[in-house]
Amino acid sequence: MKTSISIPDSLLPFIPLLYIAWADDVLEEHEIAYIKKQIDQNKTIKEETKLIVYKWLNPENPPSARELAYWKSYIKDHADVLDPAAKMDLFTLGKRLAKNPNSEEWVNDQTKQSLSHIENYLGIASHEAIRSVYETNPVQGYQTFTINKPKKGYSVQLKTLLQHYNADLKTRVQNILDKHKEAIESYDDDLITRKEKVFKWTKELADAGLGKLAYPSAYGGSDSMVQYAAVFEELAKYDLSLTIKFGVHFGLFGGSVESLGTTYHHDKYLKDIGTMALPGCFAMTEMYHGSNVKALQTTAIYQPETNSFIINTPSQHDRKTYIGNAGLHAQMATVFAQLIVDGEEHGIHAFLVPIRNEQGDAMPGITIGDNGHKMGLNGVDNGTLHFNSVRIPKENLLNKFGDIDEDGQYFSPIISPSRRFFTMLGTLVGGRLCVPIAGNMASKKALNMAVYFALDRKQFGPPGEPEQSIMDYPTHQKKLMPLIANAYAYDFAHDHLLKEYTSDADHDAQEMEALAAGLKALSTWNTTTTIQTCREACGGKGYLSEMYFDLLKADSDIFTTFEGDNTVLLQLTAKSRLTYFRKQFGKMDWWDTLKYISSIASTNLSELNPLVTRDTSEEHLLSNDFQLAAFTYREEYSLRSLAMRLSKKIKEGMDSYDAFLHVQVHLIDMASAYIDRIVLERFIATIDEQEDASLKEILTSLKNLYALHRIEENKGWYLEHDYISGSKSLSINKLVQKLCKELKEESQHLVDAFDIPKHMTETALKFY
Amino acid sequence: MKTSISIPDSLLPFIPLLYIAWADDVLEEHEIAYIKKQIDQNKTIKEETKLIVYKWLNPENPPSARELAYWKSYIKDHADVLDPAAKMDLFTLGKRLAKNPNSEEWVNDQTKQSLSHIENYLGIASHEAIRSVYETNPVQGYQTFTINKPKKGYSVQLKTLLQHYNADLKTRVQNILDKHKEAIESYDDDLITRKEKVFKWTKELADAGLGKLAYPSAYGGSDSMVQYAAVFEELAKYDLSLTIKFGVHFGLFGGSVESLGTTYHHDKYLKDIGTMALPGCFAMTEMYHGSNVKALQTTAIYQPETNSFIINTPSQHDRKTYIGNAGLHAQMATVFAQLIVDGEEHGIHAFLVPIRNEQGDAMPGITIGDNGHKMGLNGVDNGTLHFNSVRIPKENLLNKFGDIDEDGQYFSPIISPSRRFFTMLGTLVGGRLCVPIAGNMASKKALNMAVYFALDRKQFGPPGEPEQSIMDYPTHQKKLMPLIANAYAYDFAHDHLLKEYTSDADHDAQEMEALAAGLKALSTWNTTTTIQTCREACGGKGYLSEMYFDLLKADSDIFTTFEGDNTVLLQLTAKSRLTYFRKQFGKMDWWDTLKYISSIASTNLSELNPLVTRDTSEEHLLSNDFQLAAFTYREEYSLRSLAMRLSKKIKEGMDSYDAFLHVQVHLIDMASAYIDRIVLERFIATIDEQEDASLKEILTSLKNLYALHRIEENKGWYLEHDYISGSKSLSINKLVQKLCKELKEESQHLVDAFDIPKHMTETALKFY
Repeated sequence: MKTSISIPDSLLPFIPLLYIAWADDVLEEHEIAYIKKQIDQNKTIKEETKLIVYKWLNPENPPSARELAYWKSYIKDHADVLDPAAKMDLFTLGKRLAKNPNSEEWVNDQTKQSLSHIENYLGIASHEAIRSVYETNPVQGYQTFTINKPKKGYSVQLKTLLQHYNADLKTRVQNILDKHKEAIESYDDDLITRKEKVFKWTKELADAGLGKLAYPSAYGGSDSMVQYAAVFEELAKYDLSLTIKFGVHFGLFGGSVESLGTTYHHDKYLKDIGTMALPGCFAMTEMYHGSNVKALQTTAIYQPETNSFIINTPSQHDRKTYIGNAGLHAQMATVFAQLIVDGEEHGIHAFLVPIRNEQGDAMPGITIGDNGHKMGLNGVDNGTLHFNSVRIPKENLLNKFGDIDEDGQYFSPIISPSRRFFTMLGTLVGGRLCVPIAGNMASKKALNMAVYFALDRKQFGPPGEPEQSIMDYPTHQKKLMPLIANAYAYDFAHDHLLKEYTSDADHDAQEMEALAAGLKALSTWNTTTTIQTCREACGGKGYLSEMYFDLLKADSDIFTTFEGDNTVLLQLTAKSRLTYFRKQFGKMDWWDTLKYISSIASTNLSELNPLVTRDTSEEHLLSNDFQLAAFTYREEYSLRSLAMRLSKKIKEGMDSYDAFLHVQVHLIDMASAYIDRIVLERFIATIDEQEDASLKEILTSLKNLYALHRIEENKGWYLEHDYISGSKSLSINKLVQKLCKELKEESQHLVDAFDIPKHMTETALKFY
Repeated sequence: MKTSISIPDSLLPFIPLLYIAWADDVLEEHEIAYIKKQIDQNKTIKEETKLIVYKWLNPENPPSARELAYWKSYIKDHADVLDPAAKMDLFTLGKRLAKNPNSEEWVNDQTKQSLSHIENYLGIASHEAIRSVYETNPVQGYQTFTINKPKKGYSVQLKTLLQHYNADLKTRVQNILDKHKEAIESYDDDLITRKEKVFKWTKELADAGLGKLAYPSAYGGSDSMVQYAAVFEELAKYDLSLTIKFGVHFGLFGGSVESLGTTYHHDKYLKDIGTMALPGCFAMTEMYHGSNVKALQTTAIYQPETNSFIINTPSQHDRKTYIGNAGLHAQMATVFAQLIVDGEEHGIHAFLVPIRNEQGDAMPGITIGDNGHKMGLNGVDNGTLHFNSVRIPKENLLNKFGDIDEDGQYFSPIISPSRRFFTMLGTLVGGRLCVPIAGNMASKKALNMAVYFALDRKQFGPPGEPEQSIMDYPTHQKKLMPLIANAYAYDFAHDHLLKEYTSDADHDAQEMEALAAGLKALSTWNTTTTIQTCREACGGKGYLSEMYFDLLKADSDIFTTFEGDNTVLLQLTAKSRLTYFRKQFGKMDWWDTLKYISSIASTNLSELNPLVTRDTSEEHLLSNDFQLAAFTYREEYSLRSLAMRLSKKIKEGMDSYDAFLHVQVHLIDMASAYIDRIVLERFIATIDEQEDASLKEILTSLKNLYALHRIEENKGWYLEHDYISGSKSLSINKLVQKLCKELKEESQHLVDAFDIPKHMTETALKFY
């Protein structure tokens, strides 16, 4: 190395000291004074050496930038050859640089002590400066991260568990869609091209018999909503537009024909719907009526003379809108309209209305619009429908819950109009079960990408050592690990609910619907949060469409709105809980019901034990007992508080509508607490069902993280209500962080169980 | 109305009772028994009438659905003609329907009482059923919402305040971009078309002299970073791709030439940069080095023989990536590379490297890639750059902070390499000031759309009355109003910081940078949350691209990552705070500094007064004193806790790198608390600067909502640390809800002050 700078031999051992004195920033006066004092007091250092050292410590005459750089490279060159991992204090470093490393002047306890004092005085800065000398060149450190990490004892079983006995079906979906991966993952399609692609894939799935699984076997199906949901879930790994297009046609349109229609409709349409020979749509939402379905304005007026209905859109505000499949492909629509017979209103009923012929032209009287470019799901052809006195035959009324007799008179097996309305909507709860399942799969895909990226990606690190994987950062662990636990928690809750709903077991329909509504809300909000967090966790790379967050985020964003706005759904859940209690308690009027809820809840709530509220032991915090008790307490308390507020307002003479409006925020709280408790119970039940110890163990850790993180998120509430002490709350925070760190070690295996196609995972590691 | 159903005269007054008995659901046995008992005991009702009533209460023989519908229409027809707003109890309704409304049988106190008892017994259900009879037809109720609401006393001044004295400049931007509104708002452009459009608009802004405002007047500028930021902010109303393209060229590229270069570079390039004759880019980030700039791998090796540098990309991992303007348009790049002179490393320096000729062809040795489709900002041509030993003349080193002398030796006015590095990066803090300003404008646009939509949109309502505006829902107010307050809070903080930064006043550069970093993090996270919440608040309509949330969300998503990952920035802020204290305290080593921080903070913290922690009076909660004290307490406490943890870990022998890693989550907490306190102080300062009483009043309400909502968000922390009692926390929750409700009345005026172009607002009201 050619240089005009040289270091006198006697100064060599002091070079590390001088380097750190100048490297970080200009030293403070007191720091220089301290260094000088230490050296001054050292009798073993020669006076002439001291003078040279002082010269280099003079702030009036600092070393040049070049001299400093030279010192650094000198230290590096002369210390590297030794052991770079050894403790690099100023004394040892100096010794390494000294021409005569065993000279009296250097190797003595006094010098060792002087240097040690100085180092302590300068503190953190000195450590970092010394170690910065050893900065390695990451170029030599780039390692290709390996996807094929040895599996853990629980790996296979965990994956199997998440497949919920539908592995074969899922493989069939993968075999079809893996062939189209390039076409699916092209981001430059124009709107029409994309929509036609998605239509084609949907037909391909239909051809493989995968669309009709929920229909009765008489119509080629498997009578299995569970299998249908498994296909729906698998589609969500590939493309959410495809998932929704599939769901709109087979689930909403086909499902409405199946559950609101009768044998006539089944015989006539179900087979063609199953093969997609008759593409259809589900026309419920209107421009001015999304959440308030009861107030839909489209009318269906019965015409006894012609035995037909006239479907009509009263005003432009009342057009059907956001109707998936309506924009381009549907030939028939299930239209929800107010049925009017002989001047009498009978409320919302569903009608089959042909909207396009096979050539794709709109039928007479029907105006079809396009909803245009959307935030996401641009592979779905959402459109608007306007009916200008469109005549359909009487048979097109889906007449399971309401019909016109031969005398042209309305009749229904359900006399209460309100009950009839909810029964009709209740048959459509399948959508509310499936949407969050697809959403949770979107979360899993996002988590898979974020975990692989984080394991591979290095950034910063201890000075002088290779950079660390960003998965080693506590902040990163805290971001991702609880969301992985959530993905498992919601998976099990969805699966339990789906199986309960489709089982023949006797269950309270209203309770199931309330649960489906509330779970859909919390689960899809969790999806939005998860994808957002994962995108941010992948930085700039996460912003590239190749990492999937683009479409995952944009496509799933509407999940919090469709199949019911989440905030509205949670209110529905809460109101349904109140009704449930009223029914449970039997012979009581509403006032007594509310009072009874309050008193029952109070009894449960009065058992707070100060020893428990302050118990910060891990054993206690990690127990099902504590976690369930905490979740239940929040639920019971919210319920009581809600009942008390409501009865107070109503007794004060407030109209019940206004009273419910007044407690709106409390309805949301109560419903959320209820759903949380159910999710935790289902998680615990899932663990109980397992037999393998390693599987139980990993699931238990995930359950603990889910439960404690949820308590942490609600710690404000728990503390407000003295359920936990401040120190217990702090212990929970710590334990969550600890669980995050422990589970981080399993992170790769935990996302592997999501079974995301390998070509997607590889993208997380690719820098092309 | 033709019908075969008829009602015997004597039954008519009981029809309302019978209707509610069946309308909601099948009555419970005990309910029917109760009704029967009441009627049975009533001596004024004739026995034959009783028998007919009992017949219609028989669950074995319920009315048909049609009969029920007929009863409903009968009640409606016969009660509507009277006063629909009058209290509709069963007694009054019955009286209205009675053939002889004054008959003995009906009009007597006993009957009145019987009916009243029944009504109470059935509770809520009966109220709702009765009122449902009066459901109006919304068709007649559709009203076009008017944008031109009369202004409030503060309206003009509030708008003026947010313009920060740049109204003229903002109007100039609007006049240019309003002309292009159709082109800006087309969503179907392919990638190239969009990028070319954005380039054209950027040039148009340059032609109008709006790009060079921050440059010295000698080069055609106005020497005004404040004016530059005002233009940047205004652009964000229209298109964030345009905003970022503009910022990359004029701010990052031009800014680097201005602040890292010297007169030679200014003379040679600044004019052409100002007119965009020389489009440029800013090449810092590498594939494997985003946040860790110090570890960038691109090298610039000085060649004394030819007086030039060789710029080289060591490996594919080290390519520059995500470089805005590099993909298509930039002809020159400011490249950050490790300077090596004579074998010695001098750390990161910036070099001007020509990358394309005027025909758009890449220069020899340079490989330009495209980052492909992105989640958002697809109007910006982000690209990758690979340098294969590219030679540039020595003059192309931006040599303000480091240069090569005539002897080929490195020199720098800043000897400490660490300080030099931070000084160079510090000159680029402008970007960290501007990005959150644009982000906050994105929040304002989203809030404007959501508020207008909510005011216009009706959904549900008291039975029998028109549907309510969704802005009347407490849940909706709680979603939107705190975010409006946040938008104001961050606006004032950004403005203060920008002015302080650009003022000639003496300020601590490192403190300003730490503040800019932290504020950027909290502000851009707030933007992400705000846009997400506004989208959901607009339901399905919010999902259509026409409502702007699509691009607002997708484009601004990267704001939390670029110009520094938010999580990394907050750690930087926290570390800088620690350094700040060390400097403040002067003659102390690091251990003492940490101890001193702990003790100082402890002194401040020990003053908790149990009367204050339990004070739930509005006067107290709304006072600046309480709010500032609460914010400061959280900051001081976090600071002390951080200092204690750090010193404990380091004293235990933990490496400082590991110690900082260990307290990472606490660094984030401390930095957030610090920024929150600054934002509140700036809000209060802004209010103090105003003179008009109505303006002060509305700002004070917003400040109260900002502060109390932030405390509510952190209530877990405050309760854990006993700063507020449980009941005080509950009072704060209530007060936040109350403020939301009060400010809801002002919501339209509050978003009008954001001055969002009218054609955008109209979209929120449009159902096409």
